[in-house]
Amino acid sequence: MISAMELGGTKTVVAIGESDGTLIEEMRFPTSTPEDTLKTAIEWFSRKGTPEAMGIAAFGPVQINPKAENWGEMLATPKPNWSGFSITNALSEAFPEMEITLETDVNAACLAEARIGAAEGLENVAYITIGTGIGAGVLCDGRLLHGALHPEFGHVLLPRKSDDDFEGVCPFHGDCLEGMASGSAIAKRWQKSGDELPPDHPAWDTEAWYLAHGIQALLGIAPPERVVIGGGVSQAEGLHEKTEKQLIELAGGYFPAVGNSPYVVPPKLGQDAGIRGALMLTGLGC
Amino acid sequence: MISAMELGGTKTVVAIGESDGTLIEEMRFPTSTPEDTLKTAIEWFSRKGTPEAMGIAAFGPVQINPKAENWGEMLATPKPNWSGFSITNALSEAFPEMEITLETDVNAACLAEARIGAAEGLENVAYITIGTGIGAGVLCDGRLLHGALHPEFGHVLLPRKSDDDFEGVCPFHGDCLEGMASGSAIAKRWQKSGDELPPDHPAWDTEAWYLAHGIQALLGIAPPERVVIGGGVSQAEGLHEKTEKQLIELAGGYFPAVGNSPYVVPPKLGQDAGIRGALMLTGLGC
Repeated sequence: MISAMELGGTKTVVAIGESDGTLIEEMRFPTSTPEDTLKTAIEWFSRKGTPEAMGIAAFGPVQINPKAENWGEMLATPKPNWSGFSITNALSEAFPEMEITLETDVNAACLAEARIGAAEGLENVAYITIGTGIGAGVLCDGRLLHGALHPEFGHVLLPRKSDDDFEGVCPFHGDCLEGMASGSAIAKRWQKSGDELPPDHPAWDTEAWYLAHGIQALLGIAPPERVVIGGGVSQAEGLHEKTEKQLIELAGGYFPAVGNSPYVVPPKLGQDAGIRGALMLTGLGC
Repeated sequence: MISAMELGGTKTVVAIGESDGTLIEEMRFPTSTPEDTLKTAIEWFSRKGTPEAMGIAAFGPVQINPKAENWGEMLATPKPNWSGFSITNALSEAFPEMEITLETDVNAACLAEARIGAAEGLENVAYITIGTGIGAGVLCDGRLLHGALHPEFGHVLLPRKSDDDFEGVCPFHGDCLEGMASGSAIAKRWQKSGDELPPDHPAWDTEAWYLAHGIQALLGIAPPERVVIGGGVSQAEGLHEKTEKQLIELAGGYFPAVGNSPYVVPPKLGQDAGIRGALMLTGLGC
């Protein structure tokens, strides 16, 4: 039995399925304390059988390096009680023979969109998610990037739009990408949440402007053939097209990949990207 | 016989050695027309024997994707006569049995510095070179990054230093990293070349400021455990320390890797990094 868990800041998804991403059955429930969340997950899996492999897609920061001593541990996070908690210990205890593959939630979603979603068949794909914060998963040369810990795309530093005097909301960097363009930034800047702002509101030109600058950083470091933007804020009508248009202008013809329109696209797998990507993790091998 | 060639915009290096980077013999000569440069290289190799493998480190843009139809071809470059020229054709014709591995010059240098140089033993390393332009090679999770074409790190877009009204020199993007901090930018901004500016000149604070912002983009996408900065401009006394100090301030404690000082370091292999990395390419496997 192939299993998967997507551990999010607000909701958790458990599923059984296949390593090609096929979902057989899933259950969603609110993320509570670490102990209760894992207990609910383990009880659900146990009722289904004994999983031989599990892919886990987790919110971060989390130690995903299998060579690290604290592999599987949540690192310093503002989410109460989760810092220092091992996601993998209780699961290994419940299913001692089970092979666990652990990834960031954004990398898992990136993998799913690259294999069976909006960037199907491509080996160089970035998946950006814009919710309360901003994160990205990156597939480069067919492999998910990790590096030291894992990418924290939201914290790249960008030029400031010329008419923009918003100070930004990132407690670490002020006006980094997350500080200027996350859901929290939109809410503070416009005193309204993204879903209350109509498609022709200037908020979306500003949003597209910062996103395009962030994507040019991706082009300079791990150049994607296509960029998928998901997450609540990305559902604003026309945001992907606006961002691509802005990017084409910025890029100045320099990056051949950007010419292959559509370059900036919405996800195809919706809220299932993370859990389907987590199932696929079980088939990645080393 | 293991061989290597480093094809640079102004000089070319040919060598024989071992795939661990050991140099047995090398020759340096000015890069001239494509045909003459390759002819000189092939004559030199022929006198040494018949190479069974060759690693090539080339200036770009160059098609390094082995699956591409135009693999081995120089792409649109301002260097006269090189656009569309195949680096690999003449070599394959001269040595039909020889296996060729082609990389960017910066990726080759990155590999050498990560294996036997200033970042020895690390699997996540960025090598930035600052000369006329700015480029970077990136080793992430032990593999050199390519993505769509290859990274063009010089063209990431950064905030502008508050007291800086220099318009930048990049013909495509104006004030991207290369536009603000390359050797050409320094020369235009200060009307002096980098080696004429004393270590306490404000030019170097400005330089460190832009470099630190570029490194934070690396941390957000393919986080290095250490950053090696080489190239002519990097030889300014104290630039690496200044850049690290600036980066620590910017990063605001957010990226654990940055705390492992020294984080920003000069190369150890000097002008041999590229050719020794090219030798190592022959041992990379698929």
